[in-house]
Amino acid sequence: MAAATLLYAQSGGVTAVINATAAAVIETGRRHGLRVLAARDGILGVLREELIDTTPLPASTVTALGRTPGGAFGSCRYKLGSLDADRAKYQRLIDVFRAHDVRYFLYNGGNDSADTALKVSRLAAEFDYPLACIGVPKTVDNDLAVTDTCPGFGSAAKYTAVSVREAALDVAAMASTSTKVFVYEAMGRHAGWLAAAAGLAGRTADDAPHVILFPERAFDEPAFLAKVREVVERVGHCVVVASEGIRAADGTFVADAGGGKDAFGHSQLGGVAPLLAARVKDSLGYKVHWTVPDYLQRSARHLASETDLEQAVAVGRAAVDYAVKGRNAVMPVIVRTRDRPYRWKIEPAPLEDIANHERTMPDDFIREDGYGITDAARRYLEPLIRGEAPPKYGRDGLPKYVRIPLPCIEKRLPAFEA
Amino acid sequence: MAAATLLYAQSGGVTAVINATAAAVIETGRRHGLRVLAARDGILGVLREELIDTTPLPASTVTALGRTPGGAFGSCRYKLGSLDADRAKYQRLIDVFRAHDVRYFLYNGGNDSADTALKVSRLAAEFDYPLACIGVPKTVDNDLAVTDTCPGFGSAAKYTAVSVREAALDVAAMASTSTKVFVYEAMGRHAGWLAAAAGLAGRTADDAPHVILFPERAFDEPAFLAKVREVVERVGHCVVVASEGIRAADGTFVADAGGGKDAFGHSQLGGVAPLLAARVKDSLGYKVHWTVPDYLQRSARHLASETDLEQAVAVGRAAVDYAVKGRNAVMPVIVRTRDRPYRWKIEPAPLEDIANHERTMPDDFIREDGYGITDAARRYLEPLIRGEAPPKYGRDGLPKYVRIPLPCIEKRLPAFEA
Repeated sequence: MAAATLLYAQSGGVTAVINATAAAVIETGRRHGLRVLAARDGILGVLREELIDTTPLPASTVTALGRTPGGAFGSCRYKLGSLDADRAKYQRLIDVFRAHDVRYFLYNGGNDSADTALKVSRLAAEFDYPLACIGVPKTVDNDLAVTDTCPGFGSAAKYTAVSVREAALDVAAMASTSTKVFVYEAMGRHAGWLAAAAGLAGRTADDAPHVILFPERAFDEPAFLAKVREVVERVGHCVVVASEGIRAADGTFVADAGGGKDAFGHSQLGGVAPLLAARVKDSLGYKVHWTVPDYLQRSARHLASETDLEQAVAVGRAAVDYAVKGRNAVMPVIVRTRDRPYRWKIEPAPLEDIANHERTMPDDFIREDGYGITDAARRYLEPLIRGEAPPKYGRDGLPKYVRIPLPCIEKRLPAFEA
Repeated sequence: MAAATLLYAQSGGVTAVINATAAAVIETGRRHGLRVLAARDGILGVLREELIDTTPLPASTVTALGRTPGGAFGSCRYKLGSLDADRAKYQRLIDVFRAHDVRYFLYNGGNDSADTALKVSRLAAEFDYPLACIGVPKTVDNDLAVTDTCPGFGSAAKYTAVSVREAALDVAAMASTSTKVFVYEAMGRHAGWLAAAAGLAGRTADDAPHVILFPERAFDEPAFLAKVREVVERVGHCVVVASEGIRAADGTFVADAGGGKDAFGHSQLGGVAPLLAARVKDSLGYKVHWTVPDYLQRSARHLASETDLEQAVAVGRAAVDYAVKGRNAVMPVIVRTRDRPYRWKIEPAPLEDIANHERTMPDDFIREDGYGITDAARRYLEPLIRGEAPPKYGRDGLPKYVRIPLPCIEKRLPAFEA
């Protein structure tokens, strides 16, 4: 009898540890005697029948994959609509599963992916096609419901806290005659999870970051400037961390104020940090520097959190185990059983409870003045950045990351325009 | 007899490893039985007679100092002019040395600091004040003459190469439906050393970074855009690394085109990366992301190069040894004795040969098409990022960095307005 086939796909933004989940899926699948396919570029690869057979990959390559950031099989930003609106596409997914005898579909992603996995499982049932659909959690945005945290977030959070602590020492050293205000822009269009993680860099009011701006609080420019001035006068310098998604009281994104066009009709791709920096310079006259780490914060495998890495591996393993045990329409989630010391376990949660729900940051994680995090936030965040899990480095001083060859197996269906 | 006194000061931009030099100075000074003072905020601290006695620091604190980024004793941007123009200040330096019986002055910095140290040594001789002035090399700009490289550069170079390699994996994974062009801005107003280091992230023409923009080559926008398009069409995505200091053919800084004021009269603090990203978006229509790491690149002690760290320690030790041996107006420099394997030693070089000379990047380090580095550049750069020297991490997942208490010793002179 041929080995049963498992198909793994990942969609949405990649992380420093998503390949660790992929490697765990492959390794666990092998232990169960499965053939593990990976979709090229996420759900698009399924629609296009672009499937990679991971069987030929040597075990050492799979191990190295687990230490490589990015998404080795590719990912995509591609949202499937409702079953009615996109019925042909859902139908196509089932056709592709059927053509390659896929009995287990593991879909790694955020809210949208959980929703897609749920719909696919319903359609398969409708068609009487035997398929186990398992969601796998992932996102640096940390906005999935039910799970304690999302693999990928802890490493981005560690990057943020470490980078802010380091840059703050630089600023402190130079502030007497040079830069007095430093603005760090953290990812987070809708929720301030990563900006909150920056708060771990300091302990007291005089430690950086001195001001955190959350998308959960309306941005009040005069109050912000007054706060910066107060900190500079007290501490000698001020480190600001701003979520990219902060908004004015009327709901408009602050970053959009810096966008638009310049006098020559050229686009301005501002970002929040340079804009805040300019306001500080204009209003307070301080010398200011700013940083936008952008993708660096979600691809910094060299600074991965060991906790995060362990969880990324654990959800990959559990997803395969659930599939083989006949579970369907579930996602392995992280359940926190204790804060100090942090203890967690993996449990299956219905995709229904996760799809299309958004986890927002609890209100009591933000300090009353709106510019910092509370002890409750620290208690939640601290364990997630704990432990180091550096990659192997080569003699050239660079991490040994692998690239996986991506030849697709032979197609068995007519082409499909996705 | 009281212990002879050594005074250490650092000026200019700080680095990930300048504290390693400071720690080495303190440890070596102690071995020689010296009292080691450190000036607060660099040369300003000498002028203001703000001197910190390092004697009470426990050995374990000094060791931890050696693993901490930033500049624990502070630094400054403050340039002394000619002996004629600033005679009162030079005179003040000698007065402060005399008041505290300073016989050895170690000045850690770049070109300006070497020049200052040289002038101080001349004035001391003129006044018959017995003083050994030793320069100590440091700068992420790598622009000091004579020395093979400058402590601080190797770690910033490693940060750059690793970050570009990691972000490139992220971009590659998402390019089919999302970001196709990523722009990374490297420090380097006058020379493209750090941008060149990014070139170590890849080996072949299809590896990132695909395009490097050097300040040593005039920026040609149409040619740049054509190159980006060619790479996207061939590889699927394009990673660009731009020196902050790139200029148009007429010599104007490209970054200044993004500066200026917006419609509301607010400053725009653009940077080169967002500007290039906007041009790519407007002209080629690709989705684009960009990063400006700014201070993160020079404070990333968590990603220090072991080679760089060893050299930072070696110059600190040698500087004290030279001082005690009665050398004057010299700087310990790094001499490369072999490329592969990299071998180096420390030798004293006259400050005269270093002060006010600038080391530029050799022309044959830049590829003929102007968008990449040559094998000669690789041969030079590779050893400088070799080896890892991670800091200690606490149980909270953050590096254990120390802050040094900075109480100054009692002043013996009237105040001086610096």
